[in-house]
Amino acid sequence: MAAERPVSCKLPQVELNALLEKLAGSTELDCCVIPLRDNRKLIQTTDFFYANVDDPYTMGWITCLNVLSDLYAMGVVDCDNLLLLLGVPTEMSPEERNIVNELLMRGFQECAAKAGTSVRGGQTVYNPWLLIGGVATSVLSDSEFIMPNQAEAESVLVLTKPLGTQLAVNGYSWMQDSTSVWKEKLAPRISVEDLKTLYEAACTDVTGFGLLDHARNLAGVQTAPVLFEITCLPCLAGVRHLSMGLAERHHLDTGLTPETSGGLLVVLPSKSAEAYCQDLFEADGTPAWIVGRVLPASNPSEARTARLSPDLTFLEVPHASMILK
Amino acid sequence: MAAERPVSCKLPQVELNALLEKLAGSTELDCCVIPLRDNRKLIQTTDFFYANVDDPYTMGWITCLNVLSDLYAMGVVDCDNLLLLLGVPTEMSPEERNIVNELLMRGFQECAAKAGTSVRGGQTVYNPWLLIGGVATSVLSDSEFIMPNQAEAESVLVLTKPLGTQLAVNGYSWMQDSTSVWKEKLAPRISVEDLKTLYEAACTDVTGFGLLDHARNLAGVQTAPVLFEITCLPCLAGVRHLSMGLAERHHLDTGLTPETSGGLLVVLPSKSAEAYCQDLFEADGTPAWIVGRVLPASNPSEARTARLSPDLTFLEVPHASMILK
Repeated sequence: MAAERPVSCKLPQVELNALLEKLAGSTELDCCVIPLRDNRKLIQTTDFFYANVDDPYTMGWITCLNVLSDLYAMGVVDCDNLLLLLGVPTEMSPEERNIVNELLMRGFQECAAKAGTSVRGGQTVYNPWLLIGGVATSVLSDSEFIMPNQAEAESVLVLTKPLGTQLAVNGYSWMQDSTSVWKEKLAPRISVEDLKTLYEAACTDVTGFGLLDHARNLAGVQTAPVLFEITCLPCLAGVRHLSMGLAERHHLDTGLTPETSGGLLVVLPSKSAEAYCQDLFEADGTPAWIVGRVLPASNPSEARTARLSPDLTFLEVPHASMILK
Repeated sequence: MAAERPVSCKLPQVELNALLEKLAGSTELDCCVIPLRDNRKLIQTTDFFYANVDDPYTMGWITCLNVLSDLYAMGVVDCDNLLLLLGVPTEMSPEERNIVNELLMRGFQECAAKAGTSVRGGQTVYNPWLLIGGVATSVLSDSEFIMPNQAEAESVLVLTKPLGTQLAVNGYSWMQDSTSVWKEKLAPRISVEDLKTLYEAACTDVTGFGLLDHARNLAGVQTAPVLFEITCLPCLAGVRHLSMGLAERHHLDTGLTPETSGGLLVVLPSKSAEAYCQDLFEADGTPAWIVGRVLPASNPSEARTARLSPDLTFLEVPHASMILK
């Protein structure tokens, strides 16, 4: 029998940071940037986690997207190579393994093809839980990526997907397993039908540290002594209400609920932000929101940190706009 | 309670190959070689597996070595970047996690430093089993690495470490856990004291497909229609006898027992092979052996395959020469 899975598969941010401080080099960003001998840079990112949607093909696609999105967050367009990391459940029969692995791989690979790259390596082991992830690598000149450390006061923070996706996905699996969390905490707040719609809307999310901790990481690497203030949390309709059924640390209002692949968090000059959101909407029909602002730090202890605004507002985003294209 | 771990954490070679055939590109080698836009190559490898020695620091070191050795097998000297992959056991307390993770990371990092590279990224999740691995990447010109596809008839196969390391390590952990395999199969064949010595001699091995399957992979990518014939299996003293206590597929005589990081398998012109072994011995005091030969395939079905010689011989290698430096 496999051990019970924690709500998020990530180590707590504080514990991870303490460990990462013991490693050399910059660790705040999801990608590492390595000077090569001719001044080009090697840019790499890795992510792995556990299956949280039922369909292996979709899970493969989500995983690939989640790995690539760390490159996209650096403005990288071309990924030179992907590696696939796979842990195959020990409890599966050989037949189950063959079917599931092929679908996972096909989803991962087709997403890679759509992104103009391909999968040319990896590692596969047995594991009690179905583990899936990848490594994305690009070698680029300085003009081909953006070091996200140039935020200036007067800039704004844009988020390209609403919050609440992981809770929607977890809630659905708790409902399917008839767990006590579903029966006691969530069922009084949402119907099975509505949760299913929410799940289908949300199935591009996988894992992460939550918007506020991502904002903190991003603020931490800035050159200028700026403060990031989150002023608005756009949430999938109904998920904020749903989150209130769980322990306080899972409330969407904390800004800390796991939510990585959900969207990119982008710093833009305020005069460009609306045009950016408009362009995104025209490109793929999904909305983006200005969720915060960059302020000059009023004292050194505020510099390169992030916080929720005391006047935090919430936006309920209808599901229809979120269906995976 | 975690599920019982299989003897090797790898999927069976046949099953993995079948899956990999569904992915585009060459998949036979542990490293992928990716043409970059200016004709330099991106060379990457990844490996992850489960802790099989008691000391976390040593386990971190072994892991790093195992990841790097896939680059070394391509003649690569400089690794541009390492990523660390870590799955932290769900059953550990926060205190245990902190101590174990720090030692694992320190071992991994100190091995990286010794190899002239460093760890600048990674991913950490919870997992029922302690999972550890890494990704090694180099960007190189064609003259800086060796595509291992130029074997010619008259060449020989050299192995730089004796076989039997994984069985020594597994046997030790079976003994510690007082499993029935230890009590019924191995205890009649070896004393606790001797097994402990063997374990200490063997602790640079981690996982793999076995010598014969590695030889098959290497033969499979050759340009010339050659046949690799394994003529000799150098084994840690006592391990062959020990393996006879297990089911037939675990007998060292099969050439298939898991054994990757144990040694490099190198194809060399026969006239250079003895000098190579001599140089290695002078460099770090460990012996290497000519374990096979490259033959012209006598018919197309033999081309680019590997087999055990009908006149296979065995060599018992004393432990003292294997102690980790």
